[in-house]
Amino acid sequence: MNFASDNWWGVAPKIMDAISSENNGSSPAYGGDDRTAKAKSRLSEVFECECEVFFVSTGGAANGLALSVLSPPYGMIVCHEDSHIQMDECGGPEFFSSGAKLLPIRGDHGKLTATGVIKALDGFPHRPPHGAPASALSLTQGTETGTIYSIDEISELCAVAHARGLSVHMDGARFANAVAATGAAPAELSWRAGVDVLCFGGTKNGCLAAEAIIFFKRELAGDVEFRRKRAGHLWSKMRFIAAQFDAYLDREYWLELAGHANFMAKTLSDGLAQIDGVNVLFETEINEVFVSFPNGVAEKLRNDGATFYPWVTPGVSRDACAQRLITSFQTSQSDVEKFLDHVQTQCNKP
Amino acid sequence: MNFASDNWWGVAPKIMDAISSENNGSSPAYGGDDRTAKAKSRLSEVFECECEVFFVSTGGAANGLALSVLSPPYGMIVCHEDSHIQMDECGGPEFFSSGAKLLPIRGDHGKLTATGVIKALDGFPHRPPHGAPASALSLTQGTETGTIYSIDEISELCAVAHARGLSVHMDGARFANAVAATGAAPAELSWRAGVDVLCFGGTKNGCLAAEAIIFFKRELAGDVEFRRKRAGHLWSKMRFIAAQFDAYLDREYWLELAGHANFMAKTLSDGLAQIDGVNVLFETEINEVFVSFPNGVAEKLRNDGATFYPWVTPGVSRDACAQRLITSFQTSQSDVEKFLDHVQTQCNKP
Amino acid sequence: MNFASDNWWGVAPKIMDAISSENNGSSPAYGGDDRTAKAKSRLSEVFECECEVFFVSTGGAANGLALSVLSPPYGMIVCHEDSHIQMDECGGPEFFSSGAKLLPIRGDHGKLTATGVIKALDGFPHRPPHGAPASALSLTQGTETGTIYSIDEISELCAVAHARGLSVHMDGARFANAVAATGAAPAELSWRAGVDVLCFGGTKNGCLAAEAIIFFKRELAGDVEFRRKRAGHLWSKMRFIAAQFDAYLDREYWLELAGHANFMAKTLSDGLAQIDGVNVLFETEINEVFVSFPNGVAEKLRNDGATFYPWVTPGVSRDACAQRLITSFQTSQSDVEKFLDHVQTQCNKP
Amino acid sequence: MNFASDNWWGVAPKIMDAISSENNGSSPAYGGDDRTAKAKSRLSEVFECECEVFFVSTGGAANGLALSVLSPPYGMIVCHEDSHIQMDECGGPEFFSSGAKLLPIRGDHGKLTATGVIKALDGFPHRPPHGAPASALSLTQGTETGTIYSIDEISELCAVAHARGLSVHMDGARFANAVAATGAAPAELSWRAGVDVLCFGGTKNGCLAAEAIIFFKRELAGDVEFRRKRAGHLWSKMRFIAAQFDAYLDREYWLELAGHANFMAKTLSDGLAQIDGVNVLFETEINEVFVSFPNGVAEKLRNDGATFYPWVTPGVSRDACAQRLITSFQTSQSDVEKFLDHVQTQCNKP
Repeated sequence: MNFASDNWWGVAPKIMDAISSENNGSSPAYGGDDRTAKAKSRLSEVFECECEVFFVSTGGAANGLALSVLSPPYGMIVCHEDSHIQMDECGGPEFFSSGAKLLPIRGDHGKLTATGVIKALDGFPHRPPHGAPASALSLTQGTETGTIYSIDEISELCAVAHARGLSVHMDGARFANAVAATGAAPAELSWRAGVDVLCFGGTKNGCLAAEAIIFFKRELAGDVEFRRKRAGHLWSKMRFIAAQFDAYLDREYWLELAGHANFMAKTLSDGLAQIDGVNVLFETEINEVFVSFPNGVAEKLRNDGATFYPWVTPGVSRDACAQRLITSFQTSQSDVEKFLDHVQTQCNKP
Repeated sequence: MNFASDNWWGVAPKIMDAISSENNGSSPAYGGDDRTAKAKSRLSEVFECECEVFFVSTGGAANGLALSVLSPPYGMIVCHEDSHIQMDECGGPEFFSSGAKLLPIRGDHGKLTATGVIKALDGFPHRPPHGAPASALSLTQGTETGTIYSIDEISELCAVAHARGLSVHMDGARFANAVAATGAAPAELSWRAGVDVLCFGGTKNGCLAAEAIIFFKRELAGDVEFRRKRAGHLWSKMRFIAAQFDAYLDREYWLELAGHANFMAKTLSDGLAQIDGVNVLFETEINEVFVSFPNGVAEKLRNDGATFYPWVTPGVSRDACAQRLITSFQTSQSDVEKFLDHVQTQCNKP
Repeated sequence: MNFASDNWWGVAPKIMDAISSENNGSSPAYGGDDRTAKAKSRLSEVFECECEVFFVSTGGAANGLALSVLSPPYGMIVCHEDSHIQMDECGGPEFFSSGAKLLPIRGDHGKLTATGVIKALDGFPHRPPHGAPASALSLTQGTETGTIYSIDEISELCAVAHARGLSVHMDGARFANAVAATGAAPAELSWRAGVDVLCFGGTKNGCLAAEAIIFFKRELAGDVEFRRKRAGHLWSKMRFIAAQFDAYLDREYWLELAGHANFMAKTLSDGLAQIDGVNVLFETEINEVFVSFPNGVAEKLRNDGATFYPWVTPGVSRDACAQRLITSFQTSQSDVEKFLDHVQTQCNKP
Repeated sequence: MNFASDNWWGVAPKIMDAISSENNGSSPAYGGDDRTAKAKSRLSEVFECECEVFFVSTGGAANGLALSVLSPPYGMIVCHEDSHIQMDECGGPEFFSSGAKLLPIRGDHGKLTATGVIKALDGFPHRPPHGAPASALSLTQGTETGTIYSIDEISELCAVAHARGLSVHMDGARFANAVAATGAAPAELSWRAGVDVLCFGGTKNGCLAAEAIIFFKRELAGDVEFRRKRAGHLWSKMRFIAAQFDAYLDREYWLELAGHANFMAKTLSDGLAQIDGVNVLFETEINEVFVSFPNGVAEKLRNDGATFYPWVTPGVSRDACAQRLITSFQTSQSDVEKFLDHVQTQCNKP
């Protein structure tokens, strides 16, 4: 009954096989190898775009590096107040950008709205060089509360951003889950809707440590090659990240993995919604379920052996009892059912 | 009819005299001179405290340097969303601290409240090393909307901060105005209420370019000496900043200057409040008046030769017509009256 | 005939097995797992010391993070002019430390000497806050020219550093090769000789991507936990780095791998030394051979299918024809012999 | 007998008058005033060039800001090992640039040579993204050892730099002294010879605190406006820096001041050269004299009331007894003569 995080789980079998089978003889270091070229080529196919791709091993590195080329060191990056870059990276974007400012703003359902972004930006009129100029908008897809931006929502947000000279970054740590859930083409959920750079996650969805920074316009990549190197994020044995992506993208394996995680979350969410006293806080669109248990129940479930974290958010309407349950490519139906039984039991107790 | 900013005005006569009279022969550079020692000693007297003082020439430098020793590069600094460090320094604190994050929060009357700070911090539970740890609370006295924190308010805020391990920084660009307005002892409005470091402004109140970073606990000063040097803020001819402070503090000249500015603002505010259609937005406690004119009036007043800026704020309840009027040590009664006449006239026009 | 770099090669079999076998079920993320604890414990045993260990995936990250806690942002780090941190990390230490200065100094055989360091430091007398204060000494073991610091040399250098208040960092990307070559205890080549923090490399010697920052005094680790996180170097699936180290250190596998690489280098070096016209530039003590071929021969060997890089160094006595040949844990005797035959042949040609 | 530094002296009379007379009424802040426009215009005239000018109050700020737009954060700046940016700014360029690396190189007479720079750069072949790419060459005119680069020397150095894609920065803290000494047109000693940006000093030559960053090609100025602001170097009362430059440049006052300082240094140097046992170390071309006294004499002179510093340099051929004597616009003939008498007396003593 482990719903702690998708990153507590291991590596999907075909991806581990790819790593092992890549281990033959020597190959040029630092990404000069064939496997890296192949993995990049696969991404271009999947996204229907001649994009510029940089592989790194963590999502924090991907986000930080991407933002460091979208924003000058004195720029301002608009993001949701719940976003990973604001809440969970210990000042990573500030570090990679040498000082850019994050402007956290509220938004229901874990999502920014065009109206909300406009209102926020209106508070920062152009006054060079006094105010930190707004330089980028960062969206998270799927969001930190398990919801999904629709194509229209992304398009509208990107239009607002571009009209004011901001670039658009998408934190896609769970982009796979959003694609699997919506069935939309990856291109539709990203560059065709206006996204400039996507940090496309693999690690949370069955890779060992593999993230891709995808610049949909090559010129936007700027000097990220140098920035990745000096940040210690250029792997010498790059082919072992590439091999992960190669297997991940092969025959839609990534969607299969994400689809399973999503399905488990939906099952979990539907089950929880039917239990008296349990309150599902957001629509469960990907592999995250946010839920409020009756007082004391969360603790009892943990005593029963279940693993999950309380939900941390700066949001005003935060429910002190809110819990976050995450499913993964390896979460089993039986585990979900077992957990639901426990919840039912604990909620029925006096 | 110039109400643009207190920093549009020049240098108070006695301060300019002090600069001129300091100009005799040679003296040790970089603050090793007698005048610097004397100015520091005056500050210790005024603040009734053996404090550690560092002189710089701008408020941005003072704030940035002070915060850079209160916060690690991955720390989080809590501030009002209207604060100068958030809105007007082009990412200065982020630069000086090598990446600290500012957390802008709302608060009525331009002020933070203990409740508001607690609520904000509750959204950031201690999760090392994931979240940027809250490291400092920054208060502005007088505030960006012309109000004043009472001693009790400061004490309560400092108690909250210290209880959670945050240091307290006070941006005192207009600290003189707050002291002049309240009659409180400088110590009462700062360290006795819990403030750890005060950026004590001179420039906005009649100095040429003179700000003092005052660490009330010597050990908090840390390595600011090195940080000031590498930031290019250690003057070789330091005695010319010291001379300004020496004259500024002599016989309460600083309070005389600030008192005049405050009185002009009060006169202006009272006059405006009596004009139909004009709405004074905040209580006028120091030398800043925030006002909403009827549609089109602000433009007409500018055409009449008045100078003032629209009010820039990220706040939700922002009035699009809001204007900011600032008085200075040199603002004349006749100028205020002339302006009030113009406002009366323009508001009466159809 | 691939002598390009040790990082062109793959993963040693037992290490790959450990990665695969670690892939079972779920485990706490971010290093809270048992395998991470076990790997750290192994390092404590190997180094006979209750050390503080942080795992990362690249050597650049390890060096940058280690130095960022040894040096303030305005500090100065003394290093050899050939060192990896100076020549090959694209400003990594400067990035991680938010601006520390590297002072590259010369030294024969790729090594710094106590005399050389003293002479260099004497040019930087203590003048706070004007000069950047010397904060750390960085040594590379084995060196960038394939040589090894003796225990006495390290002790003497550390004594000089400590006497002047500098901490000592050791870049141990090829520390394994030095241990294998000398037979000295790891503790003797590091903390017992005075080293404060060792970046202990795995990647160049058969790991996939695994480096350990080892602080021999726990208090020196400072806030590196936060710095690693914000730099995107805290792996969520940390156990897959830990598994590498666990296997690497098991039954001296790391020394077996390094010993083979060293032996191949020695074989190569000895063979080359006997060929007329070939000049071996440094004593071959680990797995690097530096050699000067007669004019045109390097190009011919490359045409024959051999892979190796010209030697890049800022040193004054640089030989334009100098080449660097690196062997690895997978380099075969037959490959070395084949290469020697080619060299013999090409050198004999008119 | 004060030869400690030119920055121990005060403000030249006409410059102090300009500051006082600027003190009338109000003026737009942050450089929007007429005096700032006038001072910029004077610089364009003096340099015969439509340049882009930014005023700051210290030389360290000028150098740091200028270099921060010439070099990316991972770039490498080539400079003399004695240069102020390397030795005396506590890591300022590294701070302003967010991490650029300085490459200090040797050169006789305090000067870099084209040959020396070529040799240094040859040790850093283009290997993106591994090595920090060389981005700028920094020259100091007059040098830290009191010598002057000839127009030909500057031209040759700039040609080398530009051929390799480096921009050229000139630290002109004592540029006035070089112009006064050579009689060359300012343009000849700067942009016509290839210099891209000059940090033109006023403070050491009679200003209170006034330095100008002069970009000779407007497009090179980049975002320095934002960088100056966030570094706290945009003065609100900018006109008081502008007034200094206005007076400084009026009727060649700057050359008059520098000429006097140079003449005093020459007088001092010539006098010292005739005293047995005293060794003048460099040709005295500007206002700095480097000299080696017999053992113990320097101490005796200090006891006699003379003030001067030992010479600090990382150079190999450093003479432990070397002293630095600096003259200023206010140094008197009688003081020089008095000092020479003391030296004569002390050197004659047994």
